[in-house]
Amino acid sequence: MTTEPHIASAFDRDLEAIQAMMLKMGGLVEAALLDAAQALETRDDDLAERVRRGDKAIDALEEQINIEAARLIALRAPTAGDLRTVLTVMKIAASLERCGDYAKNLAKRSSVLSQMSPISGSAGAIRRMAKAVEVLLRESLDSFVQRDARLAADVRLRDAEVDQMYNALFREFLTHMMEDPRNITACMHLHFIAKNIERVGDHATGIAEQVIYLVSGALPEEARPKDDRTSTALPPGAK
Amino acid sequence: MTTEPHIASAFDRDLEAIQAMMLKMGGLVEAALLDAAQALETRDDDLAERVRRGDKAIDALEEQINIEAARLIALRAPTAGDLRTVLTVMKIAASLERCGDYAKNLAKRSSVLSQMSPISGSAGAIRRMAKAVEVLLRESLDSFVQRDARLAADVRLRDAEVDQMYNALFREFLTHMMEDPRNITACMHLHFIAKNIERVGDHATGIAEQVIYLVSGALPEEARPKDDRTSTALPPGAK
Repeated sequence: MTTEPHIASAFDRDLEAIQAMMLKMGGLVEAALLDAAQALETRDDDLAERVRRGDKAIDALEEQINIEAARLIALRAPTAGDLRTVLTVMKIAASLERCGDYAKNLAKRSSVLSQMSPISGSAGAIRRMAKAVEVLLRESLDSFVQRDARLAADVRLRDAEVDQMYNALFREFLTHMMEDPRNITACMHLHFIAKNIERVGDHATGIAEQVIYLVSGALPEEARPKDDRTSTALPPGAK
Repeated sequence: MTTEPHIASAFDRDLEAIQAMMLKMGGLVEAALLDAAQALETRDDDLAERVRRGDKAIDALEEQINIEAARLIALRAPTAGDLRTVLTVMKIAASLERCGDYAKNLAKRSSVLSQMSPISGSAGAIRRMAKAVEVLLRESLDSFVQRDARLAADVRLRDAEVDQMYNALFREFLTHMMEDPRNITACMHLHFIAKNIERVGDHATGIAEQVIYLVSGALPEEARPKDDRTSTALPPGAK
Protein backbone atom coordinates (compact mmCIF):
# COMPACT_ATOMS: atom_id res chain seq x y z
CA MET A 1 0.00 0.00 0.00
CA THR A 2 3.01 2.31 -0.24
CA THR A 3 1.78 3.78 -3.53
CA GLU A 4 -1.48 4.99 -1.96
CA PRO A 5 -0.20 8.40 -0.82
CA HIS A 6 1.43 8.93 -4.21
CA ILE A 7 -1.81 8.25 -6.05
CA ALA A 8 -3.72 10.52 -3.69
CA SER A 9 -1.28 13.39 -4.05
CA ALA A 10 -1.19 13.03 -7.83
CA PHE A 11 -4.95 13.39 -7.79
CA ASP A 12 -4.75 16.43 -5.53
CA ARG A 13 -2.15 18.01 -7.76
CA ASP A 14 -4.29 17.45 -10.87
CA LEU A 15 -7.35 18.77 -9.06
CA GLU A 16 -5.42 21.86 -7.97
CA ALA A 17 -4.48 22.45 -11.60
CA ILE A 18 -8.05 22.40 -12.91
CA GLN A 19 -9.24 24.47 -9.94
CA ALA A 20 -6.58 27.04 -10.79
CA MET A 21 -7.82 27.13 -14.40
CA MET A 22 -11.36 27.58 -13.16
CA LEU A 23 -10.34 30.51 -10.94
CA LYS A 24 -8.42 32.08 -13.82
CA MET A 25 -11.58 31.72 -15.90
CA GLY A 26 -13.60 33.34 -13.10
CA GLY A 27 -11.19 36.28 -12.98
CA LEU A 28 -11.46 36.81 -16.74
CA VAL A 29 -15.27 36.67 -16.62
CA GLU A 30 -15.46 39.14 -13.72
CA ALA A 31 -13.14 41.56 -15.55
CA ALA A 32 -15.12 41.17 -18.80
CA LEU A 33 -18.37 41.99 -17.02
CA LEU A 34 -16.98 45.12 -15.34
CA ASP A 35 -15.15 46.25 -18.50
CA ALA A 36 -18.27 45.81 -20.64
CA ALA A 37 -20.34 47.84 -18.17
CA GLN A 38 -17.65 50.53 -18.11
CA ALA A 39 -17.52 50.59 -21.93
CA LEU A 40 -21.28 51.14 -21.91
CA GLU A 41 -21.06 54.01 -19.45
CA THR A 42 -18.07 55.78 -21.01
CA ARG A 43 -19.10 54.91 -24.60
CA ASP A 44 -15.67 53.38 -25.10
CA ASP A 45 -15.86 51.26 -28.28
CA ASP A 46 -12.23 50.15 -28.02
CA LEU A 47 -12.80 48.68 -24.58
CA ALA A 48 -16.00 47.00 -25.82
CA GLU A 49 -14.04 45.49 -28.70
CA ARG A 50 -11.38 44.16 -26.29
CA VAL A 51 -14.10 42.47 -24.20
CA ARG A 52 -15.55 40.86 -27.33
CA ARG A 53 -12.17 39.54 -28.42
CA GLY A 54 -11.32 38.38 -24.90
CA ASP A 55 -14.16 35.86 -24.83
CA LYS A 56 -12.07 33.41 -26.88
CA ALA A 57 -9.64 32.99 -23.97
CA ILE A 58 -12.55 32.18 -21.65
CA ASP A 59 -13.93 29.57 -24.06
CA ALA A 60 -10.47 28.04 -24.48
CA LEU A 61 -10.09 27.68 -20.70
CA GLU A 62 -13.41 25.84 -20.46
CA GLU A 63 -12.35 23.42 -23.15
CA GLN A 64 -9.02 22.85 -21.41
CA ILE A 65 -10.79 22.22 -18.08
CA ASN A 66 -13.08 19.66 -19.72
CA ILE A 67 -10.16 17.85 -21.30
CA GLU A 68 -8.07 17.85 -18.11
CA ALA A 69 -11.04 16.80 -15.96
CA ALA A 70 -11.85 13.86 -18.24
CA ARG A 71 -8.19 12.86 -18.24
CA LEU A 72 -8.08 13.08 -14.45
CA ILE A 73 -11.18 10.89 -14.07
CA ALA A 74 -9.88 8.34 -16.57
CA LEU A 75 -6.35 8.17 -15.12
CA ARG A 76 -6.98 8.51 -11.39
CA ALA A 77 -10.38 6.79 -11.04
CA PRO A 78 -11.29 9.13 -8.15
CA THR A 79 -13.47 8.07 -5.23
CA ALA A 80 -17.10 9.15 -5.12
CA GLY A 81 -16.33 12.34 -3.17
CA ASP A 82 -13.36 13.36 -5.33
CA LEU A 83 -15.35 12.56 -8.45
CA ARG A 84 -18.11 14.86 -7.28
CA THR A 85 -15.56 17.64 -6.86
CA VAL A 86 -14.25 17.17 -10.41
CA LEU A 87 -17.76 17.11 -11.87
CA THR A 88 -18.58 20.28 -9.93
CA VAL A 89 -15.55 22.03 -11.42
CA MET A 90 -16.81 21.06 -14.89
CA LYS A 91 -20.27 22.41 -14.09
CA ILE A 92 -18.88 25.66 -12.72
CA ALA A 93 -16.67 26.05 -15.82
CA ALA A 94 -19.75 25.61 -18.04
CA SER A 95 -21.53 28.33 -16.02
CA LEU A 96 -18.56 30.67 -16.35
CA GLU A 97 -18.44 30.11 -20.09
CA ARG A 98 -22.10 31.21 -20.33
CA CYS A 99 -21.35 34.26 -18.16
CA GLY A 100 -18.51 35.15 -20.53
CA ASP A 101 -20.99 35.02 -23.43
CA TYR A 102 -23.28 37.41 -21.57
CA ALA A 103 -20.41 39.86 -21.02
CA LYS A 104 -19.51 39.61 -24.72
CA ASN A 105 -23.13 40.29 -25.67
CA LEU A 106 -23.16 43.30 -23.32
CA ALA A 107 -20.04 44.63 -25.07
CA LYS A 108 -21.67 44.15 -28.50
CA ARG A 109 -24.76 46.05 -27.47
CA SER A 110 -22.62 48.74 -25.84
CA SER A 111 -20.99 49.47 -29.24
CA VAL A 112 -24.44 49.86 -30.78
CA LEU A 113 -25.78 52.02 -27.97
CA SER A 114 -22.83 54.41 -28.28
CA GLN A 115 -24.36 55.42 -31.65
CA MET A 116 -27.74 56.32 -30.10
CA SER A 117 -28.97 59.07 -27.78
CA PRO A 118 -28.26 58.01 -24.20
CA ILE A 119 -31.12 57.09 -21.86
CA SER A 120 -30.53 59.23 -18.79
CA GLY A 121 -29.26 57.37 -15.72
CA SER A 122 -29.38 53.94 -17.35
CA ALA A 123 -25.66 53.30 -17.86
CA GLY A 124 -24.83 54.12 -14.23
CA ALA A 125 -27.62 51.85 -12.96
CA ILE A 126 -26.35 49.04 -15.19
CA ARG A 127 -22.79 49.52 -13.99
CA ARG A 128 -23.95 49.26 -10.35
CA MET A 129 -25.88 46.11 -11.17
CA ALA A 130 -22.85 44.63 -12.97
CA LYS A 131 -20.68 45.42 -9.94
CA ALA A 132 -23.14 43.75 -7.55
CA VAL A 133 -23.22 40.65 -9.75
CA GLU A 134 -19.44 40.58 -10.11
CA VAL A 135 -19.15 40.47 -6.30
CA LEU A 136 -21.66 37.59 -6.13
CA LEU A 137 -19.77 35.66 -8.79
CA ARG A 138 -16.44 36.18 -7.04
CA GLU A 139 -17.84 35.13 -3.67
CA SER A 140 -19.52 32.05 -5.16
CA LEU A 141 -16.08 30.96 -6.45
CA ASP A 142 -14.48 31.81 -3.08
CA SER A 143 -17.10 29.65 -1.38
CA PHE A 144 -16.05 26.78 -3.65
CA VAL A 145 -12.33 27.18 -2.95
CA GLN A 146 -12.94 27.40 0.81
CA ARG A 147 -15.75 24.81 0.77
CA ASP A 148 -17.69 27.46 2.72
CA ALA A 149 -21.39 26.57 2.70
CA ARG A 150 -22.24 29.61 4.80
CA LEU A 151 -20.74 32.02 2.26
CA ALA A 152 -22.50 30.09 -0.51
CA ALA A 153 -25.83 30.45 1.32
CA ASP A 154 -25.18 34.17 1.66
CA VAL A 155 -24.56 34.52 -2.11
CA ARG A 156 -27.79 32.68 -2.74
CA LEU A 157 -29.77 35.08 -0.57
CA ARG A 158 -28.21 38.22 -1.99
CA ASP A 159 -29.14 37.32 -5.57
CA ALA A 160 -32.65 38.60 -4.71
CA GLU A 161 -31.16 42.11 -4.47
CA VAL A 162 -29.91 41.81 -8.05
CA ASP A 163 -33.35 40.68 -9.13
CA GLN A 164 -34.81 43.78 -7.49
CA MET A 165 -32.32 46.01 -9.34
CA TYR A 166 -33.39 44.34 -12.57
CA ASN A 167 -37.09 44.81 -11.79
CA ALA A 168 -36.57 48.52 -11.14
CA LEU A 169 -34.69 48.91 -14.43
CA PHE A 170 -37.37 46.99 -16.34
CA ARG A 171 -40.07 49.41 -15.14
CA GLU A 172 -37.85 52.39 -15.90
CA PHE A 173 -37.17 51.25 -19.47
CA LEU A 174 -40.89 50.65 -20.07
CA THR A 175 -41.61 54.20 -18.92
CA HIS A 176 -38.92 55.67 -21.20
CA MET A 177 -40.31 53.74 -24.17
CA MET A 178 -43.86 54.87 -23.53
CA GLU A 179 -42.81 58.48 -23.11
CA ASP A 180 -40.96 58.64 -26.41
CA PRO A 181 -40.99 55.97 -29.14
CA ARG A 182 -37.56 57.18 -30.27
CA ASN A 183 -36.22 55.57 -27.07
CA ILE A 184 -37.58 52.14 -27.94
CA THR A 185 -34.59 50.62 -29.73
CA ALA A 186 -32.08 51.85 -27.16
CA CYS A 187 -34.29 50.63 -24.30
CA MET A 188 -34.67 47.21 -25.90
CA HIS A 189 -30.88 46.87 -25.95
CA LEU A 190 -30.55 48.19 -22.38
CA HIS A 191 -33.25 45.80 -21.25
CA PHE A 192 -31.42 42.83 -22.77
CA ILE A 193 -28.24 43.99 -21.09
CA ALA A 194 -29.97 44.18 -17.71
CA LYS A 195 -31.55 40.76 -18.25
CA ASN A 196 -28.20 39.22 -19.17
CA ILE A 197 -26.51 40.67 -16.09
CA GLU A 198 -29.35 39.27 -14.00
CA ARG A 199 -28.66 35.88 -15.63
CA VAL A 200 -25.01 36.09 -14.55
CA GLY A 201 -26.40 36.56 -11.03
CA ASP A 202 -28.46 33.40 -11.51
CA HIS A 203 -25.28 31.56 -12.49
CA ALA A 204 -23.54 32.83 -9.34
CA THR A 205 -26.47 31.42 -7.37
CA GLY A 206 -26.22 28.16 -9.28
CA ILE A 207 -22.50 27.91 -8.41
CA ALA A 208 -23.31 28.63 -4.75
CA GLU A 209 -25.90 25.84 -4.79
CA GLN A 210 -23.31 23.45 -6.25
CA VAL A 211 -21.01 24.34 -3.36
CA ILE A 212 -23.74 23.72 -0.78
CA TYR A 213 -24.39 20.37 -2.44
CA LEU A 214 -20.69 19.54 -2.46
CA VAL A 215 -20.18 20.41 1.21
CA SER A 216 -23.43 19.09 2.68
CA GLY A 217 -24.38 16.42 0.14
CA ALA A 218 -27.85 17.93 -0.24
CA LEU A 219 -29.30 20.77 -2.28
CA PRO A 220 -30.87 23.59 -0.23
CA GLU A 221 -34.41 22.54 0.64
CA GLU A 222 -36.36 25.74 0.36
CA ALA A 223 -36.82 27.07 -3.15
CA ARG A 224 -34.29 29.70 -4.10
CA PRO A 225 -35.45 33.23 -3.30
CA LYS A 226 -36.31 34.53 -6.74
CA ASP A 227 -37.38 38.09 -7.19
CA ASP A 228 -37.60 38.61 -10.91
CA ARG A 229 -41.29 39.33 -11.31
CA THR A 230 -41.04 40.89 -14.77
CA SER A 231 -42.17 37.75 -16.60
CA THR A 232 -45.60 38.39 -15.10
CA ALA A 233 -45.43 42.19 -15.34
CA LEU A 234 -48.45 44.07 -16.57
CA PRO A 235 -48.15 47.56 -18.07
CA PRO A 236 -47.26 50.30 -15.55
CA GLY A 237 -50.48 51.45 -13.94
CA ALA A 238 -52.37 48.19 -14.62
CA LYS A 239 -54.05 46.50 -11.67
CA MET B 1 -10.35 -12.41 -18.50
CA THR B 2 -13.76 -14.13 -18.44
CA THR B 3 -15.27 -11.27 -16.49
CA GLU B 4 -14.46 -8.73 -19.22
CA PRO B 5 -17.67 -9.16 -21.23
CA HIS B 6 -19.71 -8.99 -18.01
CA ILE B 7 -18.12 -5.71 -17.01
CA ALA B 8 -18.60 -4.32 -20.50
CA SER B 9 -22.25 -5.28 -20.66
CA ALA B 10 -22.96 -3.90 -17.19
CA PHE B 11 -21.54 -0.59 -18.37
CA ASP B 12 -23.61 -0.71 -21.55
CA ARG B 13 -26.75 -1.47 -19.56
CA ASP B 14 -26.10 1.45 -17.20
CA LEU B 15 -25.35 3.72 -20.13
CA GLU B 16 -28.57 2.63 -21.85
CA ALA B 17 -30.47 3.55 -18.69
CA ILE B 18 -29.14 7.11 -18.50
CA GLN B 19 -29.58 7.56 -22.25
CA ALA B 20 -33.21 6.48 -21.88
CA MET B 21 -33.68 9.06 -19.10
CA MET B 22 -32.11 11.70 -21.31
CA LEU B 23 -34.46 10.87 -24.19
CA LYS B 24 -37.45 10.95 -21.85
CA MET B 25 -36.25 14.38 -20.72
CA GLY B 26 -35.96 15.45 -24.37
CA GLY B 27 -39.53 14.30 -25.06
CA LEU B 28 -40.85 16.28 -22.08
CA VAL B 29 -38.96 19.41 -23.14
CA GLU B 30 -40.21 19.17 -26.76
CA ALA B 31 -43.81 18.75 -25.55
CA ALA B 32 -43.44 21.66 -23.09
CA LEU B 33 -42.19 23.94 -25.86
CA LEU B 34 -45.02 23.08 -28.25
CA ASP B 35 -47.67 23.20 -25.49
CA ALA B 36 -46.44 26.59 -24.27
CA ALA B 37 -46.57 27.99 -27.83
CA GLN B 38 -50.06 26.57 -28.27
CA ALA B 39 -51.19 28.04 -24.95
CA LEU B 40 -49.93 31.41 -26.20
CA GLU B 41 -51.81 31.14 -29.48
CA THR B 42 -55.11 29.83 -28.07
CA ARG B 43 -54.85 31.92 -24.85
CA ASP B 44 -55.25 28.70 -22.86
CA ASP B 45 -54.21 29.51 -19.28
CA ASP B 46 -54.86 25.94 -18.07
CA LEU B 47 -52.43 24.53 -20.60
CA ALA B 48 -49.87 27.20 -19.68
CA GLU B 49 -50.25 26.25 -16.02
CA ARG B 50 -49.69 22.57 -16.84
CA VAL B 51 -46.47 23.46 -18.67
CA ARG B 52 -45.27 25.47 -15.67
CA ARG B 53 -45.98 22.63 -13.26
CA GLY B 54 -44.45 20.05 -15.62
CA ASP B 55 -40.98 21.63 -15.38
CA LYS B 56 -40.40 19.91 -12.02
CA ALA B 57 -40.38 16.50 -13.73
CA ILE B 58 -37.74 17.75 -16.19
CA ASP B 59 -35.54 19.07 -13.36
CA ALA B 60 -35.93 15.80 -11.44
CA LEU B 61 -34.78 13.80 -14.46
CA GLU B 62 -31.64 15.92 -14.81
CA GLU B 63 -30.79 15.35 -11.17
CA GLN B 64 -31.35 11.61 -11.56
CA ILE B 65 -29.13 11.52 -14.66
CA ASN B 66 -26.35 13.32 -12.79
CA ILE B 67 -26.55 10.90 -9.88
CA GLU B 68 -26.66 7.81 -12.09
CA ALA B 69 -23.84 9.09 -14.31
CA ALA B 70 -21.57 9.78 -11.32
CA ARG B 71 -22.39 6.33 -9.92
CA LEU B 72 -21.62 4.74 -13.29
CA ILE B 73 -18.25 6.51 -13.53
CA ALA B 74 -17.32 5.59 -9.94
CA LEU B 75 -18.40 1.95 -10.20
CA ARG B 76 -17.42 1.02 -13.74
CA ALA B 77 -14.32 3.22 -14.23
CA PRO B 78 -15.12 3.55 -17.96
CA THR B 79 -12.44 3.84 -20.64
CA ALA B 80 -11.68 7.26 -22.16
CA GLY B 81 -14.23 6.81 -24.98
CA ASP B 82 -17.01 5.53 -22.74
CA LEU B 83 -16.28 8.26 -20.21
CA ARG B 84 -16.64 10.87 -22.94
CA THR B 85 -20.06 9.42 -23.77
CA VAL B 86 -21.21 9.63 -20.14
CA LEU B 87 -19.95 13.21 -19.78
CA THR B 88 -21.74 14.11 -23.01
CA VAL B 89 -25.02 12.72 -21.63
CA MET B 90 -24.56 14.94 -18.55
CA LYS B 91 -23.89 17.98 -20.73
CA ILE B 92 -26.94 17.28 -22.90
CA ALA B 93 -29.10 16.82 -19.79
CA ALA B 94 -27.92 20.22 -18.50
CA SER B 95 -28.87 21.77 -21.86
CA LEU B 96 -32.31 20.14 -21.77
CA GLU B 97 -32.88 21.43 -18.25
CA ARG B 98 -32.21 24.99 -19.47
CA CYS B 99 -34.56 24.43 -22.43
CA GLY B 100 -37.25 23.30 -19.99
CA ASP B 101 -36.78 26.55 -18.08
CA TYR B 102 -37.27 28.51 -21.30
CA ALA B 103 -40.51 26.65 -22.04
CA LYS B 104 -41.69 27.34 -18.48
CA ASN B 105 -40.89 31.04 -18.90
CA LEU B 106 -42.79 31.05 -22.21
CA ALA B 107 -45.82 29.57 -20.41
CA LYS B 108 -45.59 32.21 -17.65
CA ARG B 109 -45.51 35.04 -20.17
CA SER B 110 -48.34 33.42 -22.14
CA SER B 111 -50.60 33.68 -19.06
CA VAL B 112 -49.78 37.38 -18.79
CA LEU B 113 -50.25 38.04 -22.51
CA SER B 114 -53.71 36.47 -22.44
CA GLN B 115 -54.78 39.48 -20.34
CA MET B 116 -53.58 42.00 -22.95
CA SER B 117 -54.74 42.97 -26.44
CA PRO B 118 -53.21 40.52 -28.92
CA ILE B 119 -50.51 41.68 -31.35
CA SER B 120 -51.76 40.58 -34.75
CA GLY B 121 -49.94 37.63 -36.29
CA SER B 122 -47.40 37.30 -33.50
CA ALA B 123 -48.68 34.14 -31.79
CA GLY B 124 -48.80 32.21 -35.06
CA ALA B 125 -45.27 33.29 -35.96
CA ILE B 126 -44.04 32.24 -32.52
CA ARG B 127 -45.74 28.87 -32.80
CA ARG B 128 -44.05 28.25 -36.16
CA MET B 129 -40.70 29.22 -34.66
CA ALA B 130 -41.28 26.90 -31.67
CA LYS B 131 -42.15 24.06 -34.05
CA ALA B 132 -38.97 24.61 -36.08
CA VAL B 133 -36.88 24.59 -32.90
CA GLU B 134 -38.64 21.51 -31.55
CA VAL B 135 -37.67 19.63 -34.74
CA LEU B 136 -34.03 20.77 -34.35
CA LEU B 137 -33.97 19.64 -30.73
CA ARG B 138 -35.46 16.24 -31.57
CA GLU B 139 -33.02 15.69 -34.44
CA SER B 140 -30.05 16.74 -32.30
CA LEU B 141 -31.03 14.00 -29.81
CA ASP B 142 -31.59 11.52 -32.67
CA SER B 143 -28.10 12.34 -33.94
CA PHE B 144 -26.74 11.45 -30.49
CA VAL B 145 -28.59 8.12 -30.29
CA GLN B 146 -27.51 7.15 -33.79
CA ARG B 147 -24.04 8.74 -33.45
CA ASP B 148 -24.87 10.41 -36.76
CA ALA B 149 -22.43 13.29 -37.34
CA ARG B 150 -24.06 14.11 -40.68
CA LEU B 151 -27.48 14.67 -39.07
CA ALA B 152 -25.78 16.70 -36.33
CA ALA B 153 -24.07 18.88 -38.96
CA ASP B 154 -27.45 19.40 -40.64
CA VAL B 155 -29.03 20.55 -37.35
CA ARG B 156 -26.17 22.95 -36.91
CA LEU B 157 -26.72 24.52 -40.31
CA ARG B 158 -30.48 24.82 -39.96
CA ASP B 159 -30.24 26.80 -36.73
CA ALA B 160 -29.50 29.83 -38.95
CA GLU B 161 -33.11 29.60 -40.22
CA VAL B 162 -34.36 29.93 -36.64
CA ASP B 163 -32.11 32.94 -36.16
CA GLN B 164 -33.66 34.49 -39.27
CA MET B 165 -37.18 33.88 -37.94
CA TYR B 166 -36.14 35.59 -34.72
CA ASN B 167 -34.64 38.57 -36.58
CA ALA B 168 -37.87 39.04 -38.55
CA LEU B 169 -39.93 38.97 -35.33
CA PHE B 170 -37.59 41.40 -33.60
CA ARG B 171 -38.11 43.98 -36.38
CA GLU B 172 -41.85 43.37 -36.36
CA PHE B 173 -42.14 43.93 -32.60
CA LEU B 174 -40.10 47.14 -32.83
CA THR B 175 -42.49 48.43 -35.51
CA HIS B 176 -45.57 47.56 -33.41
CA MET B 177 -44.09 49.36 -30.40
CA MET B 178 -43.26 52.46 -32.38
CA GLU B 179 -46.71 52.57 -33.95
CA ASP B 180 -48.56 52.42 -30.65
CA PRO B 181 -47.01 52.72 -27.18
CA ARG B 182 -49.88 50.65 -25.79
CA ASN B 183 -48.29 47.67 -27.55
CA ILE B 184 -44.98 48.08 -25.74
CA THR B 185 -45.52 45.80 -22.75
CA ALA B 186 -47.02 42.99 -24.82
CA CYS B 187 -44.23 43.29 -27.40
CA MET B 188 -41.56 43.15 -24.67
CA HIS B 189 -43.01 39.84 -23.48
CA LEU B 190 -43.33 38.51 -27.04
CA HIS B 191 -39.77 39.57 -27.75
CA PHE B 192 -38.49 37.68 -24.71
CA ILE B 193 -40.46 34.66 -25.79
CA ALA B 194 -38.93 34.77 -29.28
CA LYS B 195 -35.45 35.23 -27.79
CA ASN B 196 -35.92 32.27 -25.46
CA ILE B 197 -37.10 30.02 -28.29
CA GLU B 198 -34.06 31.12 -30.28
CA ARG B 199 -31.93 30.11 -27.28
CA VAL B 200 -33.48 26.64 -27.31
CA GLY B 201 -32.31 26.49 -30.93
CA ASP B 202 -28.81 27.42 -29.76
CA HIS B 203 -28.95 24.54 -27.27
CA ALA B 204 -29.98 22.14 -30.08
CA THR B 205 -26.93 23.38 -31.99
CA GLY B 206 -24.79 22.88 -28.89
CA ILE B 207 -26.03 19.29 -28.57
CA ALA B 208 -25.29 18.69 -32.26
CA GLU B 209 -21.76 20.00 -31.73
CA GLN B 210 -21.30 17.64 -28.78
CA VAL B 211 -22.33 14.75 -31.07
CA ILE B 212 -19.88 15.81 -33.77
CA TYR B 213 -17.17 15.95 -31.12
CA LEU B 214 -18.16 12.54 -29.74
CA VAL B 215 -18.15 10.88 -33.17
CA SER B 216 -15.16 12.60 -34.76
CA GLY B 217 -13.12 13.61 -31.69
CA ALA B 218 -12.95 17.21 -32.95
CA LEU B 219 -15.24 20.20 -32.75
CA PRO B 220 -16.39 21.59 -36.11
CA GLU B 221 -13.66 23.88 -37.42
CA GLU B 222 -15.57 26.70 -39.01
CA ALA B 223 -17.43 28.99 -36.63
CA ARG B 224 -21.07 28.09 -36.20
CA PRO B 225 -23.32 29.89 -38.69
CA LYS B 226 -24.95 32.47 -36.45
CA ASP B 227 -27.59 34.73 -37.83
CA ASP B 228 -28.94 36.63 -34.86
CA ARG B 229 -27.97 40.17 -35.79
CA THR B 230 -30.32 41.89 -33.39
CA SER B 231 -27.64 42.58 -30.78
CA THR B 232 -26.22 45.07 -33.29
CA ALA B 233 -29.60 46.28 -34.58
CA LEU B 234 -30.13 49.95 -35.13
CA PRO B 235 -33.62 51.46 -35.20
CA PRO B 236 -35.69 50.54 -38.29
CA GLY B 237 -34.78 52.97 -41.05
CA ALA B 238 -31.33 53.80 -39.59
CA LYS B 239 -28.34 53.48 -41.90
